[in-house]
Amino acid sequence: MRQARVSFVDALGMSEYTEKPWQLVRSEQGPSLILFQTRFDWVANPRTGRSLKAIVLEAPDWVNVVAVTPEGKVVVVHQYRFGTGQTTIEIPAGIVEKGETPQQAAIRELKEETGYTTTRWKYLGWVESNPAFLNNHCHQWLAQAVVKTQAAEPDANEDIAVSEFSLAEVRQAIADERIRNSLALLALSHVFDLRGDSEREQFSGEK
Amino acid sequence: MRQARVSFVDALGMSEYTEKPWQLVRSEQGPSLILFQTRFDWVANPRTGRSLKAIVLEAPDWVNVVAVTPEGKVVVVHQYRFGTGQTTIEIPAGIVEKGETPQQAAIRELKEETGYTTTRWKYLGWVESNPAFLNNHCHQWLAQAVVKTQAAEPDANEDIAVSEFSLAEVRQAIADERIRNSLALLALSHVFDLRGDSEREQFSGEK
Repeated sequence: MRQARVSFVDALGMSEYTEKPWQLVRSEQGPSLILFQTRFDWVANPRTGRSLKAIVLEAPDWVNVVAVTPEGKVVVVHQYRFGTGQTTIEIPAGIVEKGETPQQAAIRELKEETGYTTTRWKYLGWVESNPAFLNNHCHQWLAQAVVKTQAAEPDANEDIAVSEFSLAEVRQAIADERIRNSLALLALSHVFDLRGDSEREQFSGEK
Repeated sequence: MRQARVSFVDALGMSEYTEKPWQLVRSEQGPSLILFQTRFDWVANPRTGRSLKAIVLEAPDWVNVVAVTPEGKVVVVHQYRFGTGQTTIEIPAGIVEKGETPQQAAIRELKEETGYTTTRWKYLGWVESNPAFLNNHCHQWLAQAVVKTQAAEPDANEDIAVSEFSLAEVRQAIADERIRNSLALLALSHVFDLRGDSEREQFSGEK
């Protein structure tokens, strides 16, 4: 476990903040939920001394792929999503399987979901999927000069349509509320400036 | 439920894609897990005709607040996170409580977690927290000209330090892997251009 790196403590009235680590009192395995193994952790708040029960979803790491064609178009997938019960537009993504590196998972997911391949991969970094309750990371990849070289091979739980969007079409799909998956949007924002006009004008050039 | 808007079907070999809706066969309530009420949905894949069991986490909506001071600094919170078991740097965020609007939740969370307030609020839009298994939305707000007007009032499950970061410090904290919460990063990316130098050079000016 990495060391907590809290070093900036507000001088304006945050004297209550303790800067002490939280102690794990005990852990208990919870139900298994298809995508997650659940765990309950009892942790002691250093500020109050009291323990509370927290839910942790243990999950394998995930990958997201921003795939760009030689013409500068983004490969997007149209996919039914079980959580929202709606069809969304996203980017290729999936789970890092056992024995895979994140890059191997990115290559495989792009190929399986879309049939596109490339040899030009760039790592955009990892993010915490949701540190409040998930213990995993999501790895973000940029795949450049991707070309459709084979038929897609969707999983049993997928029914996926693929298309290529220009950056203008990506922006329009965001404006139309068709691209709303937070992890897909975040990966795209690492490659393209997706801010609204007013933020671009107001906050550009700040340091 | 909104209408699925899949209209771009790839002509290059995606003939297997059906463009039909998924049918909900049946639902069953699962265990309650502190932050979520779980539900199992059996849904029929229109491509294969076979049903599969999906996990849905029912959760209230969330809010994220990008709070900027009159000097252009971002208000960040240093907070222990139960999912990763680590202290991260994030932006003020929380749950929309029953009876609250997303904006009321944003105002309250900023005040409770940091003691900062303002009257200048701008909605940055909502995103799907994770449409694969969560049914909720995360609302993103920009709070401008925020000023520390009172002491923070942390919850029983919080021990929060507050500080102000310049955009350069935000970028450095991202580079140092101290800001990694996907929803916090996404909200920040709606206000600031957080791309790396190579992506900024390569993909700026594309349409």
